[in-house]
Amino acid sequence: MTNSGASHRSVSSDYDSEALRNSLKKRAGVIEAMLDRLIPQVSGPDARLVEAMRYAALGGGKRLRGYLVAEVAALFDDRAGDDGAYRAAASVEMLHAYSLVHDDLPAMDDDDLRRGQPSTHRKFDEATAILVGDALQTKAFEVLAEVGTHPETAVRLDLVLTLAKASGAAGMVGGQMIDMEGEGRALSLDEVRHLHALKTGCLIRYSAEAGAILGKANAEQRELIVSYGRDIGAAFQIADDVLDATASAEELGKTAGKDLAAAKSTFVALLGIEGAQREAEALVRRAADSLRIFGDKAERLRDLARYVVERRS
Amino acid sequence: MTNSGASHRSVSSDYDSEALRNSLKKRAGVIEAMLDRLIPQVSGPDARLVEAMRYAALGGGKRLRGYLVAEVAALFDDRAGDDGAYRAAASVEMLHAYSLVHDDLPAMDDDDLRRGQPSTHRKFDEATAILVGDALQTKAFEVLAEVGTHPETAVRLDLVLTLAKASGAAGMVGGQMIDMEGEGRALSLDEVRHLHALKTGCLIRYSAEAGAILGKANAEQRELIVSYGRDIGAAFQIADDVLDATASAEELGKTAGKDLAAAKSTFVALLGIEGAQREAEALVRRAADSLRIFGDKAERLRDLARYVVERRS
Repeated sequence: MTNSGASHRSVSSDYDSEALRNSLKKRAGVIEAMLDRLIPQVSGPDARLVEAMRYAALGGGKRLRGYLVAEVAALFDDRAGDDGAYRAAASVEMLHAYSLVHDDLPAMDDDDLRRGQPSTHRKFDEATAILVGDALQTKAFEVLAEVGTHPETAVRLDLVLTLAKASGAAGMVGGQMIDMEGEGRALSLDEVRHLHALKTGCLIRYSAEAGAILGKANAEQRELIVSYGRDIGAAFQIADDVLDATASAEELGKTAGKDLAAAKSTFVALLGIEGAQREAEALVRRAADSLRIFGDKAERLRDLARYVVERRS
Repeated sequence: MTNSGASHRSVSSDYDSEALRNSLKKRAGVIEAMLDRLIPQVSGPDARLVEAMRYAALGGGKRLRGYLVAEVAALFDDRAGDDGAYRAAASVEMLHAYSLVHDDLPAMDDDDLRRGQPSTHRKFDEATAILVGDALQTKAFEVLAEVGTHPETAVRLDLVLTLAKASGAAGMVGGQMIDMEGEGRALSLDEVRHLHALKTGCLIRYSAEAGAILGKANAEQRELIVSYGRDIGAAFQIADDVLDATASAEELGKTAGKDLAAAKSTFVALLGIEGAQREAEALVRRAADSLRIFGDKAERLRDLARYVVERRS
């Protein structure tokens, strides 16, 4: 079953974009509420740090990573869309938010805008932004490990370990480092693929895998979900490059055209816009194929694969 | 039983400083070897980040936090001085190293020297130092969660959660934030105590607690160890203030007198050098008292409490 099976349901595209939009919106609302609950505003001397953490983590974003956690978990268990899955969803959004706060710092990408708002170091200051990122990373692990209505011990520990591997030096942060080092020199297509597999891909792949862990997937199911996550992660970054080259800052909510300005080696620079789009399409088809054994329950995840390359922001 | 019981064994001081020094040195060597094993140098595009992580985490320091983990674990189980305890010891040293790398950044304390060497952002660059701190934090959690010869699942998860609470916004990072905000204005003694209980105290307290968790301490034992850790953590910071006011940069291996230069509210500024020393002494006595039920096995931990206030670096 590929996503072509859904093509009759929408006139504007070959997938059910409205059902997906509703599903994304619904889960994003629950994730937002969970983040609000997990990072409650405090008074006293800690107030400013927590306020800045809330600024960085709340109020925006598509919550794509959190959506993946909850939607994949629901594949395995209808009741998985409960507290435990949404805690894990909020956790990965905290981890993602930390990476954005640090990426935007002057010593890194030096970006003033994020989600159409001043980035955290612009809204507060640089020291606060460093500490906000640090604290959000810690909180992401705390939330996974926390006792409560959460799943059993072994599941929580698997989540902690899988997130740590995906986000550390051999994952997201390693990719960020390669990205920094690659500025100003030409990277090969394989190098660009490797960079993005780490920088963006690992956390998206983790998000899908976290859902499988929560759902107590067997080894084969988990591997298929990992493949799906890996492919949409790769497609996501290619689509991001295409967006950076073609969309406006208003659409993006962040500075547009900055890859070109920074002379970064992108998929668009290496493959052209059409070549990049073709590669993304191929990844989306393969991602949908990985979901075949899950049947109709995976409809929204197949829609998401398409959405990843067709979004305009 | 207080540390006065050890007073006959040393002429230079009222505790067995030589036995402690040997014990510290022995465990520091094992911790160093564990860090070396856990952060192996790699080749390829990740090489520079890993090299910088090793620069920040290896080669130096008293390994006080790691020592606490292993020495407290050994209170409960002679075989606790094994792989699991040293993994947890290496983990807290990674966490500590990350906090130093970020604290030294230009936007934070802006310090060029650390352990007598260029701080990480001076040796490498600022972006690398941000990522090194991020990756070392992640690695600290990965090491705790990792499967292997490590203790059982529930113990590992307890360690992850306890470390996250100690090091996040309500712990170490929260203290760092209050410290930043407090610069340039006068803090009360209670505010200074609260600041340091978070900034330095939480991680030292965690280190002792981690040993108790590894040793499967009962609730009463764990609470006593937590009290011990809390008190030596507080004493440690007061001693640090005294050192900053009285020692040379050569002795410290970092810039001396910088608290005064930054007009920071310190224990020395609020209590005077003698008053600060008296408070540290009282904390050390109480710390030793907390260990009474552990008898002779806690001799080195009692020595450590004394050492914390008598060290010159």
